[in-house]
Formats: sequence, structure tokens, C-alpha cells
Amino acid sequence: MFSKETYMARRAKLKQSVGSGLLLFTGNDESGMNYADNTYHFRQDSTFLYFFGLAYAGLNAIIDIDNDREIIFGDELTIDAIVWMGTQPTLKEKSDRVGIREIRPSAEIAGYLDNARSHKQEIHYLPTYRAEHQIKLFQWLDVIPGTEKPSVPFILGVVNQRNYKSDEEIAEIDKACIVTADMHLTAMRTVRPGITEAEVAAAVTEVAQANNYQLSFPVIATINGQTLHNHYHGNTIKSGDMLLLDAGAETEMGYAGDMSSTIPADARFTTRQKEIYDIAVASHEAAVAALKPGVLFESIYDKACEVIMDGMKQLGFAKGDPAEAVQAGAHALFMPCGLGHMMGLDVHDMENLGEVYVGYDGRPKSTQFGRKSLRLGRKLEPGFVLTIEPGIYFIPELIDLWRSQDKFTEFINYEKVATYKDFSGIRNEEDYLITADGARLLGKKIPLRTEEVEGLR
Amino acid sequence: MFSKETYMARRAKLKQSVGSGLLLFTGNDESGMNYADNTYHFRQDSTFLYFFGLAYAGLNAIIDIDNDREIIFGDELTIDAIVWMGTQPTLKEKSDRVGIREIRPSAEIAGYLDNARSHKQEIHYLPTYRAEHQIKLFQWLDVIPGTEKPSVPFILGVVNQRNYKSDEEIAEIDKACIVTADMHLTAMRTVRPGITEAEVAAAVTEVAQANNYQLSFPVIATINGQTLHNHYHGNTIKSGDMLLLDAGAETEMGYAGDMSSTIPADARFTTRQKEIYDIAVASHEAAVAALKPGVLFESIYDKACEVIMDGMKQLGFAKGDPAEAVQAGAHALFMPCGLGHMMGLDVHDMENLGEVYVGYDGRPKSTQFGRKSLRLGRKLEPGFVLTIEPGIYFIPELIDLWRSQDKFTEFINYEKVATYKDFSGIRNEEDYLITADGARLLGKKIPLRTEEVEGLR
Repeated sequence: MFSKETYMARRAKLKQSVGSGLLLFTGNDESGMNYADNTYHFRQDSTFLYFFGLAYAGLNAIIDIDNDREIIFGDELTIDAIVWMGTQPTLKEKSDRVGIREIRPSAEIAGYLDNARSHKQEIHYLPTYRAEHQIKLFQWLDVIPGTEKPSVPFILGVVNQRNYKSDEEIAEIDKACIVTADMHLTAMRTVRPGITEAEVAAAVTEVAQANNYQLSFPVIATINGQTLHNHYHGNTIKSGDMLLLDAGAETEMGYAGDMSSTIPADARFTTRQKEIYDIAVASHEAAVAALKPGVLFESIYDKACEVIMDGMKQLGFAKGDPAEAVQAGAHALFMPCGLGHMMGLDVHDMENLGEVYVGYDGRPKSTQFGRKSLRLGRKLEPGFVLTIEPGIYFIPELIDLWRSQDKFTEFINYEKVATYKDFSGIRNEEDYLITADGARLLGKKIPLRTEEVEGLR
Repeated sequence: MFSKETYMARRAKLKQSVGSGLLLFTGNDESGMNYADNTYHFRQDSTFLYFFGLAYAGLNAIIDIDNDREIIFGDELTIDAIVWMGTQPTLKEKSDRVGIREIRPSAEIAGYLDNARSHKQEIHYLPTYRAEHQIKLFQWLDVIPGTEKPSVPFILGVVNQRNYKSDEEIAEIDKACIVTADMHLTAMRTVRPGITEAEVAAAVTEVAQANNYQLSFPVIATINGQTLHNHYHGNTIKSGDMLLLDAGAETEMGYAGDMSSTIPADARFTTRQKEIYDIAVASHEAAVAALKPGVLFESIYDKACEVIMDGMKQLGFAKGDPAEAVQAGAHALFMPCGLGHMMGLDVHDMENLGEVYVGYDGRPKSTQFGRKSLRLGRKLEPGFVLTIEPGIYFIPELIDLWRSQDKFTEFINYEKVATYKDFSGIRNEEDYLITADGARLLGKKIPLRTEEVEGLR
């Protein structure tokens, strides 16, 4: 946890930003898997963590701007809870650590909100992403589930702080990225024909957990890298395969790392693999070289996609002008995802608050297939932390669909593409901090170019 | 997945058991950690799995007994979903595998239930344990969250099938228990002074995941074994400590294993540790010896607790008659938890349906501290699968509380107990199937007696 001054300063800034009303923070509760007490690992809401720092289940908070009060609502442990789950600091001790002096029992939050409503105070809340949040809003504010109206001023107040990482946050993210890099280095030493995807995923997970870190998202460890978020781990790796690993660690404070690598099953990539892989690396390096304040990230996406289309043209998969192909959206056959996203307390930072606010500064997102998955498009500023992750994928279902629709036949050579339907996919991913005059790699370097990857095998 | 005949037979029996009305099965959805799309690993509802076998998110089902219809409600994948998450069998293919011929879009379930209500059909549903279930009941049946009225006939119909494990289920549980045993053997080879609880937990988790299994519950790996469900992994193990490991694997079909072991940090237990450990083993072996059909499990609990109180008396921690002490509840100072619980598709099988139905055949549970945590008290029958897990714990907060209240001074020698407040706790746990004339250990044997544990170090 940071010092109480950090949390006090964040809350002061948020109050100033929203100006008036009452801010309701719904903390997360324990989440049952198959019954209430068999819980998933507890994850506090990231905005609650950012402003109140306490990673305990069962807390909620109010910042009553109009009446200048900051209150944490929670309950002390019973002796049964101590016997079963162990002791904890008292609620007062916890709250002191983050500079909150007013604490009240959980049961009082509904009354506090009732009173605020009767005084016509405006009550601001954020978008819900768990059913438990919807039930809280229903029970406390009579909001029918599915009809929530999150507060845009509250969202903007949060986004405009959390998007700019402080030095102490960057130090945490660096820690997450160092362990994340170790996860990938472990995989590069582990992957070989005959072992299973599950064994690789398990070895990678162990690296994070042995550091007492969590995973920042479910591990992707697949020989079918063409499926972007493939969580199936039932295959055995065989000679000629590539394993796509997308995995990251989360520090005890909740900060994320997020990297991807594509690892040949054998000591070396095949020629066919290397040809495609080298294009992905060229796209990656072009994107990294372009990172600096003032540049529109969407223009870096354009550039990265053009490098891919240019390379694919040289290999005979694409034709026509690469820049025109990208504007038309033809590149999305090979790269249907974005180039990168903000990263912080969430691996896709603040995705629950709305990508338009976080990644586009309010500007509408494209609806074009492929480009619509670009989570970040805005002008870069110092303090932004983001991923760079171009990829090249051969997705049989998408190839068949587009081909049947005669889509982009001026840019795509489907006859050649169809011969690669068994290729799978390639993605490499690093994390960067935008600095005053450029960008800095977070964590530490992992092998990227084919010769670097092969050098570790 | 079992054959479609298994699921068809289970549903037929359930229909007969409940007799009339409409049975609503709320399947589980994906659960977001810190935003909607960053999900915990998906876990299907166990009762849904038992009757419909499909471990996919976003499904719900109805058995309309009155109209003799069985329907799965769900949606086919979009091309975006296939690109991101991979392809799946069609809903029809999935449903065919479990013998369901009627499938309908998710959006139609509300209308189906509306129609049933307008025809005055009785609608049965089970207790909720996720907020998402409450929202479904609210949206489909106007049930205000917190006012759910689960159907006792439905609960009993489910419990009276799931409590009796079939041969094919036992084979699955054996698989879970073999991997669970391997997790404990790995820990016994890993624990040593200088490594962290997190490293042990990570190594144990890796064993499950490398088999493409999940954890059946969060790993307990702690030098503070006196806290029964301690999920903190921040300590480094030092010479003289014991590590209490409670961990189990869950097969791909969802069947659980659940074992505990207590491992000395050093090659051998200290004399102080061995004295207490041997009592726990004596209690354990007495309980196992008593397992057979027709015996009330609560009487085995009594016996196991008496062995503990007798041993503790010989060491000077307890006094008076052990059997009287157990009836009074004094043993709960050392053993505040139960002796065992049903195990199957849930590690605490059907805990969400109510322990009174599952473990007590409708008989009310004791409210006495300690005994109230006994999840299973009923007469044993062939096909029951259960755990045996007596333990001896020195819980400083409980010792101080009871001592300050002069509680059970006729049975407890607090002066001696107080000198063991730094002892931590011991628990060993195995899984058994009740057979026609006794019981069979599930999975494979792990070291239990001190010499067996030390033999592996």
C-alpha cells in the first residue's frame, strides 16, 4: 500500500474534479465459484484500490463532496471469522492507513444514501461489471438492474487521474513486468515437442505465484494462436508447432504486467514461420520507434498495420497499396485486434469505465471490424503506460467468411491465404511508459527477434 | 462428459422425484474480476453439470415436468466471439451430447417462464449463491434479491441423487484424488526452511494445472495452521515450523479431491510437535476404522473428538472425562471444525443446497460452537463420498477469549494451553467412499504417521 498521503491527495483531486454531489464507491465482495464460501481469489475493485487502497472484501465507501465527508463502510470480524479466516487489522486501523477517519457499519450505507437522496444530493456511481454491484445499486438506490446510469463526471474524474501513472505506480508496474518477463523466459525454456499446453501454462503460473503475485489475466498458452483469447490448454505441442503465450503477473498492490511471445516447438522457427514472424517484428519495432508524447496512437496503429500489409504483399498474401488497404480495413483479416491498450491497476486499464473515455479522450471509436478492437487511439502523453502487441493471424473461419463474401478482393490474395489456414498465429507484446521525450520499456527485455528467441532454446 | 444416457436417466429420476411443476436451472455465467471481460476461470454450476453436463457459460435450462419438455436456452457464437475465443460446437451439437432435443435462444426464457406463471404452474428453483442468479430470478420471476424462496422438493430431488455416487462418478473422483495426492507428495518434497508459503502453494498448484485440472478450492499453505482457512501466503518457512497444506484438484468434469497434510519444516518433527501430531493421527485412524454403512457420522465425530480429548488429557492440556468434555463442547477449543463433509462435484458437496439436507437428512444441525461446523452428521450409506479430517489447533484468540470467560475450566487446563499459543495447528485429511461393508480410500495413500512423513523428507 502507498502512504496515506497518496490516497488523500487522490481523493482531494477527485473531489475538485467532480465538484459536487456524493461519490459512491462499490468495493468488491468475495465471489463464490460453485457455492458461496468456495471463493475465487479476492480481487478488489481497481478504482476502490486507487482511492482507498484497501484490498479487503466487504467494504464500500462514500465521498460526500457537499458535506466534506469521507466514509468507509464495513464490519469488524466475528470470533468465528477469526477462527476460520485469521485475524485482520481493525476497520479503524485499516482506515487510518489510507487517511480515512470516519468508519461506519455496513448496514448504515443504505440510510446514508436515503438521507442524501431526501436532501436532493446528486449521487454519482461508476459503471457496474459484477452482478453484486447491480444488486447494491438496486438495494441502496432503487436502480433496476440493467438500467444503471453511471456518472460521466465521476468517470472522467477517475480516468483523468488513473491514466497518468505516478513514479510510485511506475515502480509497481516495473515489478509486475519483471515477473511477467520471467514467466515468458520460463516458457521459452520449457516449450518443446511432447509437452502439453497445460504444462506450459502451469509452469508460467507458478512463476507468478511463487512471487506471491496473482495472474493479471487468464493465461493464454496455445498452439492455436489464431484464436486471440484462447484459454483451452488441452493440446500436446508437437514438432512444427508454435506456442503463443500471452500472460502477465499482478503485484500484491494490484498493478499488472502483460506480455506475449510466440515460441517455436523446435529449436528453430521453420522458414514459413520465420517469414511471417519477421513481418510481425518489423511492425512491432516500427510501432515502438514511433512512441512519444503528442503522437496519436491511432496513427501508430495505422503505421504498424501498413508494415504488416506491406510484408504480406511481398510474400504474396496481399496486394494493392498497403495504406489504402489499412484504411479500407482489409488488414483486419490478419490483424483483427488492436495494437495496444492502457495498463495499470487493470491489465486493460479501466476497461469497465469505457474505452472511449480512457483511450479516446471522448472521441467516438471506429465501428470497423478490426479497428473497433483498438482500445487506445488518443494522443500520447507522458505518464501513459501501454502495451505494444501487433500480431499476424490466420483464422480459418474468418478467411472462409470473407472469401465467401468476396470481401477486399482488391487487397487480399485468398488463394495464397487459404494455403496458410493451418498456420495459427503470432503475437509479441511489450509494455512501455511514455516519457517526456519518448518511451521506456517496462520490466526487462525478453527475446523478440527470431535469433533472440532461438538463442534461448 | 458422461454418455447422454447418464444425463437422461438423472433427469428422468429428478422429474419423478419432484412430480410436477417446472424446474429452473440457472447455469453460471462468466465472472469478471476487475472488469467484465477479465474473467475468473469459468466454473459451471454443479447441479447444472450433474443434469445437463455442459460446462459452457451462458446456458440456462428448464425441465417442464407438467408439459414433459426439457429445454436448454443459449445462443450461438458470433464471428467476433469465434475470432476472440475460438470456435465451439453448435448449441444443437452440445445439447445432443446430453440428450436434449429442444434448444431455444436465451432471450426466450423470460417469455417461457411468463407463460408458465400465467398457467399457474409451480416454478421450482434452487438457492442462489452468485449475485448473477439473483438478478436472473429478479428479471425472469420478479423475485426481489434477498427474498428468494428456493424449492425444498427440488433441493431434495437433487440431494437424493447427488449424495449417492455412481461407479462412473467414483472413477472421476479417484482421478481427482490421485492428482490431489501428487500435490501433497510434491509439497512434502518441497517444504524446507527458507522457502516461502507462496512457493509451496505455487508448486502444488502447478501439479494440478499441469494435468489440466483446476483447484477444487483455494490452496491453504500456511505456517499458521491454527487458522482453519488461511489463504495468506506471505511468510517464509523457518526451522521449527510446520506447514499445513489443504489442497485439492478438480477434474475437467468438475469432480473434486480434498486432502490435508502437516509437514515439518525440518527433516523431523520436534518432540512437542510429534506428541500433538500423534494424537491427531490416533483420532484420524479411529474415525477411519469406524466408517461403514449404518453408522451415524456424528457418532464417529464424537469418537474422534474423544480420542483427541483423551490424548490432550494425557499431555496435561485437558482434564475430566473425555466423553463428557465432548458432549459439553470443550473439545472445540482444540478442534473447532467438523470431522468431514460430503465430496463430489463440489468439494463441500452441495453446500449451496443446505447442509441440513445434504449432511443431516433434514435433521436440525447443532448450534454448539465446534459441532455446528460438522457438515455431515447423518447415517452413512454405500455410495457416500466424504473426507476424514480431524485436527488439533491452538488458536490464540480463542484461547484468550474462552480463558477470559472461564469457559469449561473443568475440562481445560488453560495454564498449560497458554504455553502452546505459538504451536499453530495440525490437520490431516483423506477421502473415502462408503462401500457395502466398510470404506475405501480414494485416490492413493499419502504419508500420514510421523514416520511416514519423515520417511519422505
